Amino acid sequence: MKRRATPASPERVWIDGRRASRLDVRDRGFQYGDGLFETMRVQAHTVRLLDLHLARLQSGCRRLGIDAPNDRTLRRELAEAASWRADGVLKLIVTRGRGARGYRPPTGVHATRVMIAGAPPAAPPGTAAAVRLRVCRTRLGLNPGLAGLKTLNRLESVCARMEWRDPKIWEGLMLDADGHVVCGTMTNVFVRRARSLHTPLLDRCGVAGVMRRWVLSEAAGLRLRAREVRMRWSDLAEADEVFLTNAVAGVVPVAVVQSGARRVRPPSSDAAERLRARLALL
Amino acid sequence: MKRRATPASPERVWIDGRRASRLDVRDRGFQYGDGLFETMRVQAHTVRLLDLHLARLQSGCRRLGIDAPNDRTLRRELAEAASWRADGVLKLIVTRGRGARGYRPPTGVHATRVMIAGAPPAAPPGTAAAVRLRVCRTRLGLNPGLAGLKTLNRLESVCARMEWRDPKIWEGLMLDADGHVVCGTMTNVFVRRARSLHTPLLDRCGVAGVMRRWVLSEAAGLRLRAREVRMRWSDLAEADEVFLTNAVAGVVPVAVVQSGARRVRPPSSDAAERLRARLALL
Repeated sequence: MKRRATPASPERVWIDGRRASRLDVRDRGFQYGDGLFETMRVQAHTVRLLDLHLARLQSGCRRLGIDAPNDRTLRRELAEAASWRADGVLKLIVTRGRGARGYRPPTGVHATRVMIAGAPPAAPPGTAAAVRLRVCRTRLGLNPGLAGLKTLNRLESVCARMEWRDPKIWEGLMLDADGHVVCGTMTNVFVRRARSLHTPLLDRCGVAGVMRRWVLSEAAGLRLRAREVRMRWSDLAEADEVFLTNAVAGVVPVAVVQSGARRVRPPSSDAAERLRARLALL
Repeated sequence: MKRRATPASPERVWIDGRRASRLDVRDRGFQYGDGLFETMRVQAHTVRLLDLHLARLQSGCRRLGIDAPNDRTLRRELAEAASWRADGVLKLIVTRGRGARGYRPPTGVHATRVMIAGAPPAAPPGTAAAVRLRVCRTRLGLNPGLAGLKTLNRLESVCARMEWRDPKIWEGLMLDADGHVVCGTMTNVFVRRARSLHTPLLDRCGVAGVMRRWVLSEAAGLRLRAREVRMRWSDLAEADEVFLTNAVAGVVPVAVVQSGARRVRPPSSDAAERLRARLALL
């Protein structure tokens, strides 16, 4: 029997560059979710879309007033983490650091870096299979100040993900308080109609994924007109194609979108397949 | 010089009933803010309003589907923590527990209990001085599923608290996305006009504090008609009295509310003073 060589331990953890797996409970990341994270795909010991991940992290730190870790330090530590396992997932968490009780951030505090290297994800990534998507009851609260950021405040996503157990449903689509389509619990969503490629505006809530950014930058090369819009269920119903994106799974075609008794079955997965082919070359 | 005996260390931490201060980073409390907390006042080695705190915690766990810790275990551990320091603050954090990557909660996981005992707060608690309150730009997103809960997702409060540094301003008042007054960053707000005592409805966002619950239950005894309402700036402007509450500070009269160039100076602190007198008897 042929077996792939796999590391003995399923995960490896570093805190501030050192192997450790336990964090001071007074860290504001734990106390308040006062931090950000990036979930990255490692392939052949290389972090895919590394520059986009680091750019988003730095931008998020600026917006939250977190003293961002040094870029060269992060690159060195990510490279070390990626050297452990050829193929996998790397999660980098950056918090505001440790502080005393109270919401007000202390001055002169240093950000905490936590890195977790683990196994690659289960299907559907790596297959071309289209997935089933459901619309969640849990809505995303509007908060322009945090909109777009991948913060450690993820309870809305947790609540949405708790709504279903059917393993045939891969992802849940979340609407905002006004009923607009925003994003999946762990993905961004794109809708193609002819040559128009639309994805929801994330100026009021939602997480602006790195793979979303990459798709937006690739669209012109595929002769698609990409645009961020306020999206409704009717946009899904009229779509030629719907696909989901995230940094780990890449680009995932949607076969069915269900909302209560309503079903939408987008007929095409053409753009998603072309994007997957491009992604495979990275 | 007479000195009060104080413990050598400013804080003491327990995790799952044992002295420890470092938590596994894979705990969902850190990964997603997937948990709740209670901040309690300890006086004469006794946790003030203990039953209300535990009832809110159990109710929050039920709403989030967290397997709540055993009530007797919590009472025993809180009593032990309160025995360390006669006068102080006790923060109890309960998370969903440790889990693998992904928002979906794992099955069969046990909640994590973290307890931090520390020093009593600085002024204004313990004084009768009225405080200055400002209205924050950071709005609370609407999320009925999480409304009222004191979850570990506290970034909105952190962002609001970052808006000012003036030490003369004790608290920031937060509005919801629709402009209604909801609560302070760390307090609830009450507005009295004649014999009507109003506090914002917390069915769409905000944290329903234990001291708020206590004040609502005491109101009838003070011959006040308490009611939860949708509150606007105009309610503050027309108030005879405005006060803030939380479990640590108790009941805190407001001298000034400022919103940009607008100022409101409620003339009375009568109800707050009577509530403080009752609270002192607990």
